[in-house]
Amino acid sequence: MHSFSEILDQLNAFGKEQPFPNAPSTLYEPCTYILSLGGKRLRPALALMAAELVGGDPSVALHPAWAVELFHNFSLIHDDIMDAAPLRRGQPTVHVRWDLTTGILSGDVMLIYAYQHLAKTPNQQALPQLMEVFNRVAIGVCEGQQLDINFELQENVSLEEYIHMIELKTAVLLGGALEMGALAAGATARDASLLYDFGRLAGIAFQIQDDLLDTYGDPETFGKQVGGDILQNKKTFLVLKTLEAASNTDADALRSLLSPDTLLAPEQKIEAVKHLFDRYEVPALVQAEKARFEQLAFEALDAVAVPTSQKSVLQSMVAELLHREK
Amino acid sequence: MHSFSEILDQLNAFGKEQPFPNAPSTLYEPCTYILSLGGKRLRPALALMAAELVGGDPSVALHPAWAVELFHNFSLIHDDIMDAAPLRRGQPTVHVRWDLTTGILSGDVMLIYAYQHLAKTPNQQALPQLMEVFNRVAIGVCEGQQLDINFELQENVSLEEYIHMIELKTAVLLGGALEMGALAAGATARDASLLYDFGRLAGIAFQIQDDLLDTYGDPETFGKQVGGDILQNKKTFLVLKTLEAASNTDADALRSLLSPDTLLAPEQKIEAVKHLFDRYEVPALVQAEKARFEQLAFEALDAVAVPTSQKSVLQSMVAELLHREK
Repeated sequence: MHSFSEILDQLNAFGKEQPFPNAPSTLYEPCTYILSLGGKRLRPALALMAAELVGGDPSVALHPAWAVELFHNFSLIHDDIMDAAPLRRGQPTVHVRWDLTTGILSGDVMLIYAYQHLAKTPNQQALPQLMEVFNRVAIGVCEGQQLDINFELQENVSLEEYIHMIELKTAVLLGGALEMGALAAGATARDASLLYDFGRLAGIAFQIQDDLLDTYGDPETFGKQVGGDILQNKKTFLVLKTLEAASNTDADALRSLLSPDTLLAPEQKIEAVKHLFDRYEVPALVQAEKARFEQLAFEALDAVAVPTSQKSVLQSMVAELLHREK
Repeated sequence: MHSFSEILDQLNAFGKEQPFPNAPSTLYEPCTYILSLGGKRLRPALALMAAELVGGDPSVALHPAWAVELFHNFSLIHDDIMDAAPLRRGQPTVHVRWDLTTGILSGDVMLIYAYQHLAKTPNQQALPQLMEVFNRVAIGVCEGQQLDINFELQENVSLEEYIHMIELKTAVLLGGALEMGALAAGATARDASLLYDFGRLAGIAFQIQDDLLDTYGDPETFGKQVGGDILQNKKTFLVLKTLEAASNTDADALRSLLSPDTLLAPEQKIEAVKHLFDRYEVPALVQAEKARFEQLAFEALDAVAVPTSQKSVLQSMVAELLHREK
């Protein structure tokens, strides 16, 4: 079995051999740029690990894995336009560094290149299955982005709706990467589907943890401003859980704290909101919810019909991600 | 053989059975809307006609044909954003009727649905070939759109560059529709490729004719304002041909007429530009160029290795399109 860092090395070497064409440079430079901003290459790494987990050589999953990475980067370019985000990993976003037109068109062509990589899978027999998964997941991501946009304007969002949104927006692509890697290596439909569930459920747990760390993370190691979600009045898992548990008075207080009209200074606002979270022991409730999804995820992984030793690299990598402190 | 109008009926009946999901309605309503604005359904009809031309049942090409139609409509939604176009077929464009975010995201999901239809081709053996053609053509369309944008800002555009741009932006999709329809029906790679060339070359001829009609069409039947391209200072085939043939003085005169600073009233501006076109007999030169591509197109069609009688529907339909007066 290859270690996670060996998998990443293989992936980065492959990525270097997949340049975009030189011309029209106005179309392709932004594609090269967004890929050069770094990122963890987590999704394509999952695809390679899944291929090896089911007994294949990781290299059979390189093209589908790269398809997932290009899809992810396409969605970043377009999401940054929709969110009017000026920065991505500390650098100007594509539509800011170039312009709106460039952002739209470079994103579009990147999505098409994702499909081109999918079509290059060495195991052509798997192409119909790979297309099925890729399309299902890609549609899910678009629907999740739309739900996220809708929720910003929607007064009441249930926890169930929120979980469904994060599932679509981020978790299904993690599951899809694993499923596609497994299928490229000739896995059974059942094992591929269990790996999809593993990625999907771990992705939900990961997103819940993200919400928790945004407010309760260690400022020394978190990397972003702790309390950023509160200052942006985001309807996070913490907020929705508090609204569910709180008295009417406290729920109203939370809503008014998270309105753009609040007059509190940033630090005071964060403290006041955390105070309400703590009053209803929401951090512990959210931890429990995360643990529930994490357990379901690892149950799915346990059910994959391969020797346990083949699961160790993926298992420990995901476990580590789900227990990071920053 | 089915007539063109029978093909269209079959296509429209099929299209009605391919609704988008109901939710999220904010994502899918714009997709249904753009398809409901009409349009000729020319591209998917070409796919069905190609399937029948090579001896198949047109219905085997329905899913790939619909993929082409969805791709075309995706590109309309995004192009309308890039062109800041308020109207499409007399109705508000998607980003105007909804907003920018909706236009981007609905276009994205429509492109993914195009691939989903491609993957549903009944002839799954043809899927790798269909993907190869679809990806190649889709990348071409994005590159053509980028070149079109670049040319607006570029001082000198050669006729060769212009033809390459219209080839990518509009002609390759017509060729691709024919090639995919043929492949879905089990055509040989050679026949499919000849049909691609037929569509591509006829598409270039069609676009040259479009430029000609925009200035010299019959105002009674043209449908759009005659002279619209001149008023928008577009670098059309007529303009580039004139710049190539004209004296330096006349070339400068044309450039200054087509600058935003010109002080002439619209009708005077159109007349003055036409006067320069006519001085160099550009309409006849452009007609000859169109005829050259048309001839090359029909030579490709002639070379397709099926009985001539099977080509008649496609042949007469395209000939009619290339000799319309409006």
